[in-house]
Amino acid sequence: MEDRYVIGLDFGTLSGRAVLVSCENGDVLADDVKEYAHKVMSDYLPDKVTGLKGNCALQHPRDYLDVMKATVKNVMKKSGINKDEIIGISMDFTSCTILPIDENAVPLCMKKEYEHRPHAYAKLWKHHGAQTDADIINDILKDYHESDKERFAGKVSPELLIPKIMEIIREDYEIYEKADEILEAGDWLTRVITNSEKRSGSMAGYKAWWLPEKGYPESEFFALLDSKLEHVVKDKLGEEVCPIGNSIGNLTDLWAEYLGLLPGTPVGASIIDSHAGVPGSGIYRKGQMMLVAGTSSVIIALSDKPFSGKGICGTYKGGIIPDYYALESGLAAVGDMLQWFIQNSVPAEYFLAADRNEVTIHEYLSMLAGSYKAGENGLIALDWWNGNKTPHVDGELSGMLIGISMKTKPEEIYRALIESTAYGTRMIVETMKEAGIEIDEITASGGIAAKNPFFMQIYADVLGIPIGVAASSQTAALGSAIYAAVAAGASEGGYDTIEEAVAAMSKTKEKIYFPIADNVIKYNQIYREYRILTDYFGPEGNAVLKKLSVWKSETTN
Amino acid sequence: MEDRYVIGLDFGTLSGRAVLVSCENGDVLADDVKEYAHKVMSDYLPDKVTGLKGNCALQHPRDYLDVMKATVKNVMKKSGINKDEIIGISMDFTSCTILPIDENAVPLCMKKEYEHRPHAYAKLWKHHGAQTDADIINDILKDYHESDKERFAGKVSPELLIPKIMEIIREDYEIYEKADEILEAGDWLTRVITNSEKRSGSMAGYKAWWLPEKGYPESEFFALLDSKLEHVVKDKLGEEVCPIGNSIGNLTDLWAEYLGLLPGTPVGASIIDSHAGVPGSGIYRKGQMMLVAGTSSVIIALSDKPFSGKGICGTYKGGIIPDYYALESGLAAVGDMLQWFIQNSVPAEYFLAADRNEVTIHEYLSMLAGSYKAGENGLIALDWWNGNKTPHVDGELSGMLIGISMKTKPEEIYRALIESTAYGTRMIVETMKEAGIEIDEITASGGIAAKNPFFMQIYADVLGIPIGVAASSQTAALGSAIYAAVAAGASEGGYDTIEEAVAAMSKTKEKIYFPIADNVIKYNQIYREYRILTDYFGPEGNAVLKKLSVWKSETTN
Repeated sequence: MEDRYVIGLDFGTLSGRAVLVSCENGDVLADDVKEYAHKVMSDYLPDKVTGLKGNCALQHPRDYLDVMKATVKNVMKKSGINKDEIIGISMDFTSCTILPIDENAVPLCMKKEYEHRPHAYAKLWKHHGAQTDADIINDILKDYHESDKERFAGKVSPELLIPKIMEIIREDYEIYEKADEILEAGDWLTRVITNSEKRSGSMAGYKAWWLPEKGYPESEFFALLDSKLEHVVKDKLGEEVCPIGNSIGNLTDLWAEYLGLLPGTPVGASIIDSHAGVPGSGIYRKGQMMLVAGTSSVIIALSDKPFSGKGICGTYKGGIIPDYYALESGLAAVGDMLQWFIQNSVPAEYFLAADRNEVTIHEYLSMLAGSYKAGENGLIALDWWNGNKTPHVDGELSGMLIGISMKTKPEEIYRALIESTAYGTRMIVETMKEAGIEIDEITASGGIAAKNPFFMQIYADVLGIPIGVAASSQTAALGSAIYAAVAAGASEGGYDTIEEAVAAMSKTKEKIYFPIADNVIKYNQIYREYRILTDYFGPEGNAVLKKLSVWKSETTN
Repeated sequence: MEDRYVIGLDFGTLSGRAVLVSCENGDVLADDVKEYAHKVMSDYLPDKVTGLKGNCALQHPRDYLDVMKATVKNVMKKSGINKDEIIGISMDFTSCTILPIDENAVPLCMKKEYEHRPHAYAKLWKHHGAQTDADIINDILKDYHESDKERFAGKVSPELLIPKIMEIIREDYEIYEKADEILEAGDWLTRVITNSEKRSGSMAGYKAWWLPEKGYPESEFFALLDSKLEHVVKDKLGEEVCPIGNSIGNLTDLWAEYLGLLPGTPVGASIIDSHAGVPGSGIYRKGQMMLVAGTSSVIIALSDKPFSGKGICGTYKGGIIPDYYALESGLAAVGDMLQWFIQNSVPAEYFLAADRNEVTIHEYLSMLAGSYKAGENGLIALDWWNGNKTPHVDGELSGMLIGISMKTKPEEIYRALIESTAYGTRMIVETMKEAGIEIDEITASGGIAAKNPFFMQIYADVLGIPIGVAASSQTAALGSAIYAAVAAGASEGGYDTIEEAVAAMSKTKEKIYFPIADNVIKYNQIYREYRILTDYFGPEGNAVLKKLSVWKSETTN
């Protein structure tokens, strides 16, 4: 059989990417990225007049279409592959990023009459306008004894679908009324290019409380939240859901032309962007864990039993890999916190020295910090700069640095911050372990994993588990390509199962970081202190962090 | 009666100062400062060959003589006052700063045969070579049940006289043997200029366990510490002690000529430098407290009852002002900690902005931090960068910053650090209060008090007590001048009591900082959290800080 290829699309927060990949071995023949023209809108709408509230993060859906057209065409051109060799296309998308559309799938914000209405635009995953609504839901859930309560998986975040819809109802009911559907941007894109009305089981399951056996919650439940929400499923969501790893439809003639592909090319169901990295990192069996270390970190571990609680969410079977529960967690601040440190706490002389050495400031600090032994900085930090997910699930908690002396140097603090994120990661692994879920292999990806060996070695030493680095620097896009190969199926030159596709298309690791015994011993000791402090500064211990947060907000009111 | 004048000398860590002061009203007619030529020696002896250990801090006693001659002559010249109008001279000195001398009061280090011997030089107060010796003493004191055990006032510091002598015995016994006496530098200077063999009751009481009624500890006690130390009092200390506020002797003909004063001029007993600030700040009755905020802070409160413990030391009656106990405490890091912050944690843009505004970096950060309300930074720090004195008396404890978020700015941290020192100061005041000692008036002095209104207002708000600022910027030198006026006595144009002298010669405050009610309420709340954290991170709570200190030292061994 001749070589066959697939296209994977990865829609992130600020840009979208396409990769053109060989089905045989996962080689990336071409790669293209394009930024969204409107970026993230948090001050004004595109009219430059309509102001937005502080917690707004909106996007313009036209940007998604522009990025898709441009990047797919470009990878086709760059690779020189013929369109009849492309057997499938699939995409991942940030989630829950939603928008209201009309009966022709036109986003309301792209219609003249709604272009000045903030709620007609796409609300990005990190749009935080629905805190009030999430609070209402959480209040109701306290007394809600329905048997499938576990589908809500702990505290409801304002980033989920229903809180975001409730915000629209509360703030601009007409938009809600006029919307034919409200859907994930990833679902909207597959609908546009295939005319399929199905939605992704990935996004429905993780962001909208849908379960394969039970569907969405009952209308009685929605009525409890808001009487206007009673029929939200029938009126605005639609009930056809496509499980992950399947073809959701086929490319229309129009969009085949736009993209330069064959009409009828199979299109996979969209998947949440961070989840696409799981197959892209070579993960497909229980005991494997993916760690994506970037601004924040995403952790996904495969398990044959469900677990939910303490900031870990995994009750939806087959959400990423069939037959497995994908336990999802992560740290709210990793690169973010290091960047805060660089911007707010590093003296000029360090930047000058980094320049002299022709390295980045992160590389320079890592170099200095790398000359210390485990425990030598005398510091311990709690990495809660953005709140804490595991175990407290509380965004109002804040971080700390303990053990500062007159001799403490910036590079020692930098090291302590990295160490704290490793402790936080170990806390997640141990929380799983306590629930009977063992992790025996970790594969890291993301900018930090590729670029910072010092960081990775600390993780291996703190976790006491060898950590591999994913071969691909674009694990999410590669993951989408893998789903595209499965959507096409073996008969077309793809694969019939995700496992087969992962085994063939995801690369072995470039590098493995092995724990260093002396450091493991020392970090075991320090980690014990981290756990004690985590308990002490949590809601059952000293409430000082909550009080500080309240006092802070009192003064700014 | 004609105007009469006195000279006060203030010998600090790096320089000495003379002031020429009117006995009538305390006006300073002239002021002169000179640095010690050899500064603090911590690497090499003056021979530039003999290396010193890391914890060494030595001085050359010739510098003291040079400074005294130069500054006294200069204030005489600058003021134009005639030598027959000078009725007394007195000095304060850093303590415990000690040196070995021969039978002619010549320091051993100034004799050819000992000039290459480190232990022949003056050991500065902050010389830390005697930790081993202090440990031995503390071990013995644990099981030592002598009735006057309270004279040791808690844990013995390596900075005291006997540990420093034990270090000489241990490291260079010949120096100990050859020394005719080992004495405080302040005592050595009065001996040189008067030939009086008396020692200052201030230094003997605070640094050598001498009590007015009981003298030094018994020889049996010293024998317990080291058999070679059994007769240390008789052999090396001498038993004549002069209570503070008295004349210790009169100027010799030779030194009258050196200084340009009249032979026979009364010379007051030396006093510890920080103590001289008490009368210099106008403090002479119970309920008054002196706060000197500089690199570290010194707190001295007058009380009619003794108290000792939790980092507060005050069992020696009349050590500063007759009839009162002077309770002494302070914070181990104030300006020091802020300076650490400036050097290690402030980005370049802040320095550039300070330059543009033509202010110092401290002024610039204070300006920014001053725009926040109490509690608005959401931060709380423990000011233990140099360990903690009150309540834990533990130099191995370390500091912390709690409540950091992605939005935390450097100026908010700067404010939190200042606030933490105010909480630490309040902790001292409350510890006294719990012992039945009320403080109703605080007078601040030192560089920070004079220069930083933002800092002072936070102290007033946290302490809830109005804080005055001493009129004199040289309270210690003025205090010495006040003791000189008392040494001269009323019959010569001075005063018979310290109270009278203080009342006449120390100025009313230039400025009073009154607590702002709203801030007091908020800081009461935050201080409660500071206390909880102080307990939690102390030896009875979570031992994490001690462990971090141990792990740190393990790695560097």
